[in-house]
Amino acid sequence: MSRLRAVELSKSYRLLNHGPTVLVSSAAGERSNVMAAAWAMPLDFDPPKVLVVIDKATHTRELIEASGEFVLNIPCRAQAAAVLRAGGADGRLVDKFAYSGLSRRLAQKVAAPRVDGCIAYLECKVISEPHNQQCYDLFIGEVVAAEADEEVFVDGRWHFDDEAKRSLHYIAGGAFFATGEAFEVEK
Amino acid sequence: MSRLRAVELSKSYRLLNHGPTVLVSSAAGERSNVMAAAWAMPLDFDPPKVLVVIDKATHTRELIEASGEFVLNIPCRAQAAAVLRAGGADGRLVDKFAYSGLSRRLAQKVAAPRVDGCIAYLECKVISEPHNQQCYDLFIGEVVAAEADEEVFVDGRWHFDDEAKRSLHYIAGGAFFATGEAFEVEK
Repeated sequence: MSRLRAVELSKSYRLLNHGPTVLVSSAAGERSNVMAAAWAMPLDFDPPKVLVVIDKATHTRELIEASGEFVLNIPCRAQAAAVLRAGGADGRLVDKFAYSGLSRRLAQKVAAPRVDGCIAYLECKVISEPHNQQCYDLFIGEVVAAEADEEVFVDGRWHFDDEAKRSLHYIAGGAFFATGEAFEVEK
Repeated sequence: MSRLRAVELSKSYRLLNHGPTVLVSSAAGERSNVMAAAWAMPLDFDPPKVLVVIDKATHTRELIEASGEFVLNIPCRAQAAAVLRAGGADGRLVDKFAYSGLSRRLAQKVAAPRVDGCIAYLECKVISEPHNQQCYDLFIGEVVAAEADEEVFVDGRWHFDDEAKRSLHYIAGGAFFATGEAFEVEK
């Protein structure tokens, strides 16, 4: 069981900077849901903001519009099958957590749940932009809390030595890339 | 010398779906520029749209606002040092192409140049959204042409067998991840 450590908000963009696929979790009243999203990225450093595309046809969209909150959870290779399932069912018809074999955890600053076992969490409050939401399915969130697995995110950097804890990059049709080799270049 | 092949526009999101770092190239009149950007992603499938964050302080911003066009070039590992240089100088002070050791190529449908030697190209026309541009430095582009290196993008999928041609995911301070192992999971 690995432990989480707080990530300084102004460094939280680094959790997403390399473009991983995320799980978006949300809740409103008694209902909660989780969906997979490849289209999420940082938008600003400080205060940190993120972008995520949430289709109108999704249950997640309803919950985010009702609550004004969501969590971007960064899943790892060990969770790839669950991520695929979370991307392929309708949250109005099934409990996507149960369907995907994923568990809820309490978040720190939002009522939306976290997804247990992920390697990082960005808790977000929606910055209302009705035109973007309506016209482009595009949501802007301000990151209000961030934590990461202290085994893989150390001193503001990812260290993916453990294959099972590498982040994911979705391709299509059940295929992913794992995050690959880290290397440095000289300017 | 590898050859480029057209990518069907409705599949062009797959070039960006895994979250690679891009080079943004732009031109206006006699001036042209290239910058590195980790914050770019797909926004829609068909017609395909992309998002990219372009800071107000950049020369690229001036050129894109003047021309309404840009190219997202997907660079590969062999170009990592050039990508870092393209991310670290001011296009008003130096010719970033020369400074980075990168060459311009003619694009198909926009006047902005392509960056030679990249593994894919998304030629884009800005969909004007002044509020997003002013408030968030956020640009929406419609993809009007897409091509990819036929050795690495085949039948709508990346195949990164050649290490030197893997796409990049920027971390910070000169460090990157290469795109890693591809794998499939069963639903």
